[in-house]
Amino acid sequence: MIIVLKPRTTKQEIARVEEMVKARGLDTHIIEGSEMTIIGCIGDTTRIDIKLFEVDPSVTKVMHVQEPYKLASRAFHPEDSVIDVSGVKIGGGHLGLIAGPCSVESTEQVLEIATTVKAAGANLLRGGAFKPRTSPYSFQGMGLDGLNILCEAKAATGLPIVTELMSTAHLDIFHEKVDLIQIGARNMQNFDLLKRLGDIDRPILLKRGLNATYEEWFMSAEYIMAAGNENVILCERGIRTFESFTRNTLDLQSIPVGRKLTHLPIVIDPSHAGGKWWLVEPMAKAAVAAGADGLMIEVHNNPECALCDGAQSLKPKKYEELIRQVSGIAKIIGKTAD
Amino acid sequence: MIIVLKPRTTKQEIARVEEMVKARGLDTHIIEGSEMTIIGCIGDTTRIDIKLFEVDPSVTKVMHVQEPYKLASRAFHPEDSVIDVSGVKIGGGHLGLIAGPCSVESTEQVLEIATTVKAAGANLLRGGAFKPRTSPYSFQGMGLDGLNILCEAKAATGLPIVTELMSTAHLDIFHEKVDLIQIGARNMQNFDLLKRLGDIDRPILLKRGLNATYEEWFMSAEYIMAAGNENVILCERGIRTFESFTRNTLDLQSIPVGRKLTHLPIVIDPSHAGGKWWLVEPMAKAAVAAGADGLMIEVHNNPECALCDGAQSLKPKKYEELIRQVSGIAKIIGKTAD
Amino acid sequence: MIIVLKPRTTKQEIARVEEMVKARGLDTHIIEGSEMTIIGCIGDTTRIDIKLFEVDPSVTKVMHVQEPYKLASRAFHPEDSVIDVSGVKIGGGHLGLIAGPCSVESTEQVLEIATTVKAAGANLLRGGAFKPRTSPYSFQGMGLDGLNILCEAKAATGLPIVTELMSTAHLDIFHEKVDLIQIGARNMQNFDLLKRLGDIDRPILLKRGLNATYEEWFMSAEYIMAAGNENVILCERGIRTFESFTRNTLDLQSIPVGRKLTHLPIVIDPSHAGGKWWLVEPMAKAAVAAGADGLMIEVHNNPECALCDGAQSLKPKKYEELIRQVSGIAKIIGKTAD
Amino acid sequence: MIIVLKPRTTKQEIARVEEMVKARGLDTHIIEGSEMTIIGCIGDTTRIDIKLFEVDPSVTKVMHVQEPYKLASRAFHPEDSVIDVSGVKIGGGHLGLIAGPCSVESTEQVLEIATTVKAAGANLLRGGAFKPRTSPYSFQGMGLDGLNILCEAKAATGLPIVTELMSTAHLDIFHEKVDLIQIGARNMQNFDLLKRLGDIDRPILLKRGLNATYEEWFMSAEYIMAAGNENVILCERGIRTFESFTRNTLDLQSIPVGRKLTHLPIVIDPSHAGGKWWLVEPMAKAAVAAGADGLMIEVHNNPECALCDGAQSLKPKKYEELIRQVSGIAKIIGKTAD
Repeated sequence: MIIVLKPRTTKQEIARVEEMVKARGLDTHIIEGSEMTIIGCIGDTTRIDIKLFEVDPSVTKVMHVQEPYKLASRAFHPEDSVIDVSGVKIGGGHLGLIAGPCSVESTEQVLEIATTVKAAGANLLRGGAFKPRTSPYSFQGMGLDGLNILCEAKAATGLPIVTELMSTAHLDIFHEKVDLIQIGARNMQNFDLLKRLGDIDRPILLKRGLNATYEEWFMSAEYIMAAGNENVILCERGIRTFESFTRNTLDLQSIPVGRKLTHLPIVIDPSHAGGKWWLVEPMAKAAVAAGADGLMIEVHNNPECALCDGAQSLKPKKYEELIRQVSGIAKIIGKTAD
Repeated sequence: MIIVLKPRTTKQEIARVEEMVKARGLDTHIIEGSEMTIIGCIGDTTRIDIKLFEVDPSVTKVMHVQEPYKLASRAFHPEDSVIDVSGVKIGGGHLGLIAGPCSVESTEQVLEIATTVKAAGANLLRGGAFKPRTSPYSFQGMGLDGLNILCEAKAATGLPIVTELMSTAHLDIFHEKVDLIQIGARNMQNFDLLKRLGDIDRPILLKRGLNATYEEWFMSAEYIMAAGNENVILCERGIRTFESFTRNTLDLQSIPVGRKLTHLPIVIDPSHAGGKWWLVEPMAKAAVAAGADGLMIEVHNNPECALCDGAQSLKPKKYEELIRQVSGIAKIIGKTAD
Repeated sequence: MIIVLKPRTTKQEIARVEEMVKARGLDTHIIEGSEMTIIGCIGDTTRIDIKLFEVDPSVTKVMHVQEPYKLASRAFHPEDSVIDVSGVKIGGGHLGLIAGPCSVESTEQVLEIATTVKAAGANLLRGGAFKPRTSPYSFQGMGLDGLNILCEAKAATGLPIVTELMSTAHLDIFHEKVDLIQIGARNMQNFDLLKRLGDIDRPILLKRGLNATYEEWFMSAEYIMAAGNENVILCERGIRTFESFTRNTLDLQSIPVGRKLTHLPIVIDPSHAGGKWWLVEPMAKAAVAAGADGLMIEVHNNPECALCDGAQSLKPKKYEELIRQVSGIAKIIGKTAD
Repeated sequence: MIIVLKPRTTKQEIARVEEMVKARGLDTHIIEGSEMTIIGCIGDTTRIDIKLFEVDPSVTKVMHVQEPYKLASRAFHPEDSVIDVSGVKIGGGHLGLIAGPCSVESTEQVLEIATTVKAAGANLLRGGAFKPRTSPYSFQGMGLDGLNILCEAKAATGLPIVTELMSTAHLDIFHEKVDLIQIGARNMQNFDLLKRLGDIDRPILLKRGLNATYEEWFMSAEYIMAAGNENVILCERGIRTFESFTRNTLDLQSIPVGRKLTHLPIVIDPSHAGGKWWLVEPMAKAAVAAGADGLMIEVHNNPECALCDGAQSLKPKKYEELIRQVSGIAKIIGKTAD
């Protein structure tokens, strides 16, 4: 941590700031420049709120020099984490191919889609039972009935299931039935929910918030890990920008950045990012070319009649073609889907 | 709702889209232009997901022409709502002056601050018992002990209390003890929490999310209102922009916009917006000049030692001066603090 | 400047980076922490591109600790600058009240508006002769004819004129005829144009770019000042955010921030910011309450027929009322319009 | 164009708005809904400023239903445009591989880099002679001397050259010497410069502004095309987002969107987007996988000593490896570099 003091700070003022730093268990190192003085602070600053020092009238600014996360950081865990989702590996060269409808609508729908995506090469089945919707008047999902339908599809196809948890009230039943528990973008900083995920040992798919920085995203992973659950997979699903023609802007730089700063696998969701089915195919190929550890793609047998997000869903035929091309690129990049 | 079709759409395709619209209980009106055809859709479109129609290959785009909220909308409730917080009115000319420390730290601290802000003119006491923190390693608040301290300060000063609810597990105790329940920016779209607020009748202070549009913010108010609790106060606390010198950018246009589109009171929090104490005074005056219904300001007797956000806290002396100037401006604008 | 090295950097690597720094005329100061080493660099770093050091494989990041501007900085010029625009002072307690139509449309129009805004209290006349338009098919302004009309209005009313310069080809004629030369938001980083403004001694009204940070804005002022023209007035006109209901978001925190970091006057343009006439009045009052040095407001005698931006123009009657209220607030704040 | 009227608008008011529309040569079509009336406007609305209608007190909002550009639009030009840059084709399956140093520093430097990138497969040479720099104190480029060095390198290697034009004063010499004239992100809406590009027939590489929407970007292309020069290539170089770890965020959705809405080729610049050399390789591969028509990549023989942007430059060896992998992906996608 670096504390920059105001120009013309007196010796007495410097001493006062130094004392504040030392009172928090850190060592200090003074650098007196021609125009300003800075204090280098040495020790574990992870647990220190840097804003505390900004209060002092002699302080101009305070800067962290180290990332504030540890468990999620590659610096402390140099190898790629490989997360095992009920037998399907994601990360470290293993590609997670998650596919399925946005919302669970009926047993027939989910079974049909699950069978076709499995045949196309998917190794995990997704489907929304509880849906976060901007409007209270929109379809909110089938709830626990939807969850049971996913379980039926899992029984029929053997595909582990991925679905979103919105409420701590459902933690136990998700723990029992869901293979990979998704935390949605809007709950990325629902700290109450994050902390409770430490109580279970199911893998978590943590979506990046619409306006979250990388650091905030990795800190949310750290919340889950610090609470006791280290099985976290990151999922980029687009960030909000000025552009309104697309729903969101897919940030594929998150793949190499995530790889450099953390050891956690990164899955890309091109369906929610663009919000248009014809963006899914080019962006999925791009994601794998950039080194993604997985793809989460919405597939619907009848998008025109989907209760939710049909516009961004691929038909099974298109998904099959896409996976064929993606596999070609994955091979060049050195990855395989189990 | 307007559906714009692609150029050179055939009669048959137009008929197919029309049918989709009519199947959802709406009437249609076809406009054939020289280069494109559009379909005007008449009826209640509030409950319709416009993305459903974007799936059709003949459709270019679909646009809402009406706001998607009703209970929060001024169109359906022309008068200003005045919210009664345990006897203190906010809205309709009544200014809510909420002040207190960022975090509750001790009984002495809260009592001292409560007494001084009351003397300065504050009519509500704020203080954080449960703190949403980006890092799991930062101070998370005193929890229920902090809540009890706020209750003591209320007993001593008579000031109703405002504090943040982060978990549905605390809904009952907040209902019992808290006068104005704050929902934080990061939980603005925690839909599970919003729905549960309909179960209680305490007023809610709904903070705008860091990247929320006006419509999303008002829709979150609509969630609470649709669930049965119409006592909602909006709170602007700064939005995230590219600027990193300030913590966030305070959007004061939210005041006239909120007034035009909704009937709910709007309170401004200049402390969290800028993140620097010297921004609080000019922005608080600006907020009242722009017509705000209240101010939420952090005051700390000893900001240098605050456990959280000291850098953005005013000392009691400065708060007193500020309220004096604010009152002058409020008088010009035609508002009074109870 | 601070250079943060990677963990486990060797003595040899540290020496190599030190040498790079010293080769640029700076002194170094090494801080060895438990987990990382940082190098404090002492000397004038204004002219150094910090990205140069990021190339070194041992370097994690490089941070400036000083603002990169000097001539615009309050640190080197503690008193408020007061800019004299052909006899009208702006800054240091003097309020510039700039008003007039978005576009010059005819002699009659400009004369009528100029007369009424002068009567209402305006002390400078604005009007667009050259218009920056997103579409090549939109009205581009009357050009030099428009400039001549403004000169006629100046002759008739005595109000100095403000208008936008878009091309270096018009530099001489603007120098001759225009009292305050406006540089538009889209040209804030047209460095070729900025440099040429040093050739003249007319005051410049420098609008903030739609996505410019404070530092970039102040650096553009520095460009003009470094080229030899120190008469710069800053103008905030709204920044782009996610919100599309308003045209842009007016950032009033720019006023206290600008005051703290620079000595230049700051004028607020609430007309372009919100893009709606009913936002102008509350935001103009807020701007003055926050300490603005001036207001730039669009006034049109017949907004329904304006060739450009009628929706954001006030009618003369409303402008008159606004200036009356603004004067009340200005008095409280300690400012006067000449 | 659609005009949405306020609820409870009278027949008379509707008639007044209709008249305004008809006065601009459009036909109208009234849709009376249960709660609001809308007016569909038929005819060429490209040249109409929709804000004009927002002024009317009965109007709630006005929406374009057609894209405001024509010459750049795929709707009016269904085939891909293939731009010929002095014999090198870009677009329609032809990949432009532009490489070279950020800044021209010396004849030796440019010749060496030109030779190695040509050997690696590049078909165009880039190099900055005039540099747009945020600070007036940073290196501003070698100017015309730099341009002459590029010409020497062209003579030696046969590679056509790409360099940035910042000033209309250099239009003639660029026309004479430069094969592909780059317009930088900061000048994307320097309308004075855009209009003048119609005077020449050299191909233009139009970079997207840091906060430009797709529509604004394509409208800037339209400016150049409407002025008489239809040889425009679009270049995505990253947009500004909240993320500060990377310089900008590369928006690869711009590739399929640009392809759908325009017929112009799209080149990706991953070097400026991320600002870090280790982001270039994954993002370049992703760009080609998503269908880009070209890559513009900074290559420097000695990045540690580069006068500008060394941190984002690849060494020739790395560039060579990259092009080998990119060619593999391009083959799968069906593209070739001439």
